Amino acid sequence: MKEIKAYIRTSHLNQTVEALKDKGAPGTTVVTVHPIGYGFSSRFTLSEVDITKQYYDITKIELVCDKEDLDTYVSTILDSAYTGRPGDGLIFVSEVEEVYKIRTRKRGTRISDVYS
Amino acid sequence: MKEIKAYIRTSHLNQTVEALKDKGAPGTTVVTVHPIGYGFSSRFTLSEVDITKQYYDITKIELVCDKEDLDTYVSTILDSAYTGRPGDGLIFVSEVEEVYKIRTRKRGTRISDVYS
Amino acid sequence: MKEIKAYIRTSHLNQTVEALKDKGAPGTTVVTVHPIGYGFSSRFTLSEVDITKQYYDITKIELVCDKEDLDTYVSTILDSAYTGRPGDGLIFVSEVEEVYKIRTRKRGTRISDVYS
Repeated sequence: MKEIKAYIRTSHLNQTVEALKDKGAPGTTVVTVHPIGYGFSSRFTLSEVDITKQYYDITKIELVCDKEDLDTYVSTILDSAYTGRPGDGLIFVSEVEEVYKIRTRKRGTRISDVYS
Repeated sequence: MKEIKAYIRTSHLNQTVEALKDKGAPGTTVVTVHPIGYGFSSRFTLSEVDITKQYYDITKIELVCDKEDLDTYVSTILDSAYTGRPGDGLIFVSEVEEVYKIRTRKRGTRISDVYS
Repeated sequence: MKEIKAYIRTSHLNQTVEALKDKGAPGTTVVTVHPIGYGFSSRFTLSEVDITKQYYDITKIELVCDKEDLDTYVSTILDSAYTGRPGDGLIFVSEVEEVYKIRTRKRGTRISDVYS
């Protein structure tokens, strides 16, 4: 399996998540982050108190998929999160070895194993 | 080493973290996320302002452990986070190559290396 | 490529991020987390309502870099996040396979590929 981590504009979050669902993505997780760099200007002086209260315009999406679906989902994000202006963000891909579904205790090396 | 990422019901977070500690887990990190899919119904229309204020009922746990302890911790999560109803969540396992302990600058390929 | 995940004191976040930028780090992401263990005492009873409102004193930094830059950035974090007291935190290193730059659709196996 592969894990896709995409750092995209928050303004494009909904349409990206919707597009992934339309392509059949098994699940997507949205994590709020403070990006510094990666082509985004550094706007933050992070105080300990403010750290959870800030306004983000970049959001991280995490998605685990089977290897054969990787190109589909990466292309979907590339299309949905695109503006052509600096700050569109990056996508990273890593290996994931195993998945377990808690309700069924099913174990697999492909996410489609635990959904079948 | 292995990294366990588990997406579990927030209602089962405390008992899962406690169970992991009872099994000797070296450390667990809790991250609030917005899950979309993975068997959870999509309840969110994420506005940029609301994104950190929402009520979550799924929480992500991250845990790094040595390979020989993987089965113990996965089983602990499977037991502690289980309800039998849809939405119990998933567990993913990935490889982690190195660990450094900041206070001692100790480096290892096993988490027990830096704690010894 | 390598992904560095560092769990450091929030009080040392700014100086660590600044030091990474000074060393030319291509981008850093800051994620607020609830650490439990990893040498930090467990201070949390997480209620579902409070989960996003808590005061953190540990913050997670994520950074993807090319392999040849790994030692530089790890050393930078070890130096910048150090106090010598228990609770300085840990650094984990994992493999990242691919990167895509959304604006240009450039794909690479090294982060310097997509910035060139």
